[in-house]
Amino acid sequence: MTSVYTIGDYLLDRLAELGITELFGVPGDYNLHFLDHVVGHPGIRWVGSSNELNAGYAADGYARLRGAGALLTTYGVGELSAINAIAGSYAESVPVIHIVGAPRKELQARGAKVHHSLGDGDFRHFLRMAEEVTCASADLEAPSATWEIDRVLRTVIFDKRPGFLMLAADVAATPTDPPASPLERITQSSTEAAEEQFEQAVREFLPRRRAAVLADLGVHRLGAAPALHDLIERTKLPVATLSWGKTLVDESAPNFAGIYVGAASEEGVLRTVENADALITLGVEFTDNTTAGFSIDIDSAKQIEVKRSVSRVGNESFTPLSMERAIRILTKVLLDLDIDPMPQAQPQVPEIVEASNTTLTQDTLWSLVAQSLAPGNVVLAEQGTSFFGMSEHRFPKDSMFIGQPMWGSIGYTLPAMLGAGLADRSRRPILLIGDGSAHLTIQEMGQIIREKIPAVIILVNNSGYTVERAIHGPTAAYNDIPAWNWRLAPQFFGAEPGTYQTLRASTGQEMHDALKTAAEAPHDLVLIEAVTDADDAPEVLRKITAAL
Amino acid sequence: MTSVYTIGDYLLDRLAELGITELFGVPGDYNLHFLDHVVGHPGIRWVGSSNELNAGYAADGYARLRGAGALLTTYGVGELSAINAIAGSYAESVPVIHIVGAPRKELQARGAKVHHSLGDGDFRHFLRMAEEVTCASADLEAPSATWEIDRVLRTVIFDKRPGFLMLAADVAATPTDPPASPLERITQSSTEAAEEQFEQAVREFLPRRRAAVLADLGVHRLGAAPALHDLIERTKLPVATLSWGKTLVDESAPNFAGIYVGAASEEGVLRTVENADALITLGVEFTDNTTAGFSIDIDSAKQIEVKRSVSRVGNESFTPLSMERAIRILTKVLLDLDIDPMPQAQPQVPEIVEASNTTLTQDTLWSLVAQSLAPGNVVLAEQGTSFFGMSEHRFPKDSMFIGQPMWGSIGYTLPAMLGAGLADRSRRPILLIGDGSAHLTIQEMGQIIREKIPAVIILVNNSGYTVERAIHGPTAAYNDIPAWNWRLAPQFFGAEPGTYQTLRASTGQEMHDALKTAAEAPHDLVLIEAVTDADDAPEVLRKITAAL
Repeated sequence: MTSVYTIGDYLLDRLAELGITELFGVPGDYNLHFLDHVVGHPGIRWVGSSNELNAGYAADGYARLRGAGALLTTYGVGELSAINAIAGSYAESVPVIHIVGAPRKELQARGAKVHHSLGDGDFRHFLRMAEEVTCASADLEAPSATWEIDRVLRTVIFDKRPGFLMLAADVAATPTDPPASPLERITQSSTEAAEEQFEQAVREFLPRRRAAVLADLGVHRLGAAPALHDLIERTKLPVATLSWGKTLVDESAPNFAGIYVGAASEEGVLRTVENADALITLGVEFTDNTTAGFSIDIDSAKQIEVKRSVSRVGNESFTPLSMERAIRILTKVLLDLDIDPMPQAQPQVPEIVEASNTTLTQDTLWSLVAQSLAPGNVVLAEQGTSFFGMSEHRFPKDSMFIGQPMWGSIGYTLPAMLGAGLADRSRRPILLIGDGSAHLTIQEMGQIIREKIPAVIILVNNSGYTVERAIHGPTAAYNDIPAWNWRLAPQFFGAEPGTYQTLRASTGQEMHDALKTAAEAPHDLVLIEAVTDADDAPEVLRKITAAL
Repeated sequence: MTSVYTIGDYLLDRLAELGITELFGVPGDYNLHFLDHVVGHPGIRWVGSSNELNAGYAADGYARLRGAGALLTTYGVGELSAINAIAGSYAESVPVIHIVGAPRKELQARGAKVHHSLGDGDFRHFLRMAEEVTCASADLEAPSATWEIDRVLRTVIFDKRPGFLMLAADVAATPTDPPASPLERITQSSTEAAEEQFEQAVREFLPRRRAAVLADLGVHRLGAAPALHDLIERTKLPVATLSWGKTLVDESAPNFAGIYVGAASEEGVLRTVENADALITLGVEFTDNTTAGFSIDIDSAKQIEVKRSVSRVGNESFTPLSMERAIRILTKVLLDLDIDPMPQAQPQVPEIVEASNTTLTQDTLWSLVAQSLAPGNVVLAEQGTSFFGMSEHRFPKDSMFIGQPMWGSIGYTLPAMLGAGLADRSRRPILLIGDGSAHLTIQEMGQIIREKIPAVIILVNNSGYTVERAIHGPTAAYNDIPAWNWRLAPQFFGAEPGTYQTLRASTGQEMHDALKTAAEAPHDLVLIEAVTDADDAPEVLRKITAAL
């Protein structure tokens, strides 16, 4: 059945070369033959998804750990269901490859009224839609398909944005040769001249300034985290991140200053960042959600700003200069000149919250969760009270925080957790999600169970959209949702007795005990229903909405 | 709070004028203030949805009964999640209005990096995407908003396709005046000259021919069903429909010839349609799914083809000519000339299937379901074995059949049933859906329960995508899905004891009894898990896949 090497096989070999070993998606008649090649591929495993949006979210969560992810859907109905996830990957800089099985070219050419089309004979509507939210796309044609596959994949890996491949059933089945050589990669250009000029400018700028570092997600996406770690370990400068870049640096280190959230920041980190005489910002993008509505008070004249391919010192810009090279140069100059660190507040010790028998509050909840985290955990926090409540807490070394402060699509984290859990089975995923958000994508729990992901799911039951209540309509009916019996979820979605636990916590003590139970059952799926008041929100969210 | 009359109120008044009394959707911070006006509107009720795709499906199901439906989502994340449903409404000619709450114009103008955007300062990505799948769209600006709302709604109602309104939060809140007069409607042009020439051509064409009628969905969408009913009642001509137009005519009438499915048709209907000396086709669109892959043998020289605004007699076309006028003219001439009906096979009496204790087969299942239908029922059949298996069965008078043979998005029917159930509470909805399809959109059961829709849900549990197994990969793992405990569904999704029943049937007798129980509990939600073999498919589907 799969004995002739085809364009479909070529694509799968290239995906495997990118480190992809799982493919998410939903079968459909335009991709069924290609799926035979997927299940026949030695290096790639098919992970069917409950629906295409969830497949897209899972591929995104997977790519955040693996460096690339992929999903396969069918024409029209499938691809459009996933397109919100693809747009999210674009907004959040996640390299995901979306492959869409399409009708045979001959059907397209004669404008046939086939199912999953609009019936108007135009088969490029959805390709044009995909172009709005991807960095590269192609409607593959047999003669050029391998070249086009390589172009799209290369661009995705370089741009850290999603790519789109429309793969007609007959094109997928066309014979071709396997790749003759590894996929060529685009490298970030960085000239010696720009590097020398940048170093000179930094040498003139830094003396007599007390310095601090503010880092964000861009450092992770561009693979510059090792250079950043080297900088902060050797210079001992205080380092803060935005919540988007949370866990980019070791939050248990003494020079971790905290999470900068504009005017909603803790006072210590606010002072360290905004009063630094030299603020070194690395891969920072200020967005409304990560800065309490752009409430930033940073003097650009005191700033060294390192971005993807351009760095700025005061008023002067230097390009082409890669982020990694810029950070290495900064490290050298900081050490050469022995630059003083900006004073920082005493590193906050994790708050010890005494478990109590009073009603569980959001602030207590997130403190208890933070205390319970172990190195290696991947924490996925839904863009509601979970993300805002969790982001300021100190995380253990080598843990990872995943959220979507830019795209903010509710329901994202549950399928993303499946992807993250499959991308690295050595790390236990912890999901923090509200009931309102869980409604959107709950069915992926079936796959989480089938794939035996030993997740801890903390389901905050506060009877609706509390993050929106905090913004507007605290008692409005539109922020209420149907009440589900959450503790039936694992059983409904097919979990076998003995493989899961469901717990409920409505006091601090119960939450403390539930987290302890979860820790003691590292191979179980553990669902903790954490009951909080409908109008209770974490302190930082109250500060953010006040700032907005 | 809602005392000043705003552009948002104007839009809501126009929706109410179109007969819309329910608005589906999901709240988000860009639409929260507008939602205050929704819940404050005397004629419109907010029906929150579990997610936006489901909201789109629900609005589609609603519009198929009401003539128009609407949903409200938030910018980016919300609208893109719904866009597959909107494309489906386009492909299936359903007038749905999609309203999207967007960031304030001032934020858009300065390209702010706000959440739910791609962060690149371009706020029209998603508008351009919507343009691909709607007949009219507008990014509303305060000075022209009321004019633009009217233009989009008028086009939606005339074209029977979805429309899109991007409603920035500040535009929604801008004061305006209420509509001064009812929404102007576009009327279908039809000239006397064209009508006279058509009549003359028909008078010359019909004599000495035996005639039959083949009707399809277009007749319903263009409001020409009363004219069609008048034609077939007075002329007694045999009438067949395609499955897309199923229940357009009374299937219990003696001159109902059956469902025409190209080469996969029952022999009687095939002969009546393909051998007619004068085949009058009304609003017919041949698609692959409704014709067993275009296996049609119709001689266009023997055809009178009536479409939306053009009719054809043999080789001659007449336009502008409205469908309704063309049908009235045909009726007159057919009676004047006393044209003979094409002979038809004896009208099939419904198969009486003896309930038995042998394993339930798909053919038995659909026969039993068909026998159990009552007048008024709205039957929603998922585009898998359910649709194919059910479409050839005779339905009682005044029942309605809803499927998606053109768009074919699995998961559609469950939320569409919520919409249909709310559009007409006097009709009990019957949902026929496979387990594979139910996975995609199951969470809308929470809303079905909250809204107290007394649905009968027949959940065909055959462990995966059997319609795809019939096409390709009968034993392939990609057609398997995680096994859920279906009978827990109502309880998990919040149904109160005493308001629902769950039943399981794996034999004909059990299925017979379950349907009887459902009929005897007309106010309950009844979930029947019908267990069939993974590779068992209805006879007609086997014929269709053989033809393909």
